[in-house]
Amino acid sequence: MIELPTTIIEATKSFARLPGVGEKTALRQVMSMVNWSEPELDDFARNMHNLITIKRCRECGMYADEEICHVCQDTGRQQSEAICVVESISDLIAIERSQTFHGLYHVLGGVLNPLMGIGPEELKLDRLVERVSKFRIKSIILAVNPSVEGDATCSYINQLLKDVYVERIGFGIPMGGSLEYLDPLTITKALENRKRIE
Amino acid sequence: MIELPTTIIEATKSFARLPGVGEKTALRQVMSMVNWSEPELDDFARNMHNLITIKRCRECGMYADEEICHVCQDTGRQQSEAICVVESISDLIAIERSQTFHGLYHVLGGVLNPLMGIGPEELKLDRLVERVSKFRIKSIILAVNPSVEGDATCSYINQLLKDVYVERIGFGIPMGGSLEYLDPLTITKALENRKRIE
Repeated sequence: MIELPTTIIEATKSFARLPGVGEKTALRQVMSMVNWSEPELDDFARNMHNLITIKRCRECGMYADEEICHVCQDTGRQQSEAICVVESISDLIAIERSQTFHGLYHVLGGVLNPLMGIGPEELKLDRLVERVSKFRIKSIILAVNPSVEGDATCSYINQLLKDVYVERIGFGIPMGGSLEYLDPLTITKALENRKRIE
Repeated sequence: MIELPTTIIEATKSFARLPGVGEKTALRQVMSMVNWSEPELDDFARNMHNLITIKRCRECGMYADEEICHVCQDTGRQQSEAICVVESISDLIAIERSQTFHGLYHVLGGVLNPLMGIGPEELKLDRLVERVSKFRIKSIILAVNPSVEGDATCSYINQLLKDVYVERIGFGIPMGGSLEYLDPLTITKALENRKRIE
């Protein structure tokens, strides 16, 4: 194999640490960056380094510049009396992209998994209970992905918050989906969740 | 849309400048980096910034730590009496990966394209002529991709180096390729380039 300059090799290795980036893609990215100007590379390097300053919101667990994130600081959202519970920050962002939910969030950071040592404490469920009373939450939407552990987590939270109206997001055919290519379980769920046409 | 922390947004924008990386992939990468430790982020940022120090080999145009790249410094390769002419550094790396060629290289940095203002000077063809006499090169392999401009470039170099044995790499069916899915031109070339079985 050709001896590439150490700078290229080190940069490629750094890139290849990212999810979904192999050695080949990494090298391609690095080779495109070699053509960047010094200010451009400065900028890139500084922006990546700045990631160390990111905090997690003390309330919901979302990324935050300060102690509390933008969503939790929003008084409109505080008064919504609703919390949407998600597994991860990525799931939160996906829901925000849909622009359908306007309440608060709670990021679990996973689902209950006793075999992996993930219990109610790891998911900060006591914090959720606290927030429910603090913000007088009337409605909880569990936007937890369907899986054995996800289902168990939903049941657990439902038990935990007996006085609140707890719902789980609907399952069915995704938009643009085709029955022909969907798995039987999704079709079963879609049939169960059928609705009268208005 | 949710207001993500500026740090995340800036890092995502930086990432999305890379080829083949959209906003969504960029955010995913950044979100994975948020979980890195400070030394890991330091390392990444420094390695990217160091790319500014990369030089181009004065001889062949390949990336180099010093004035001359590893390949051109290799006396074994200098004595090979062969130069492989490629369009880009990526093509050079692809050929090195095949471990079949053990001579010198010459990176054109493109192909002749009068409409785009790319003439013999832009491709440093005078440098190629100099190197041919300097290293007493007997054989030139044109590893230029097939295209109208590529073909013209090959003819031009062949004219330019009348006293040298100039060849172009072979065209045909790629390994693992299937006739069924190949374009007619490739099949024509493959038929033209047929060889007696030994």
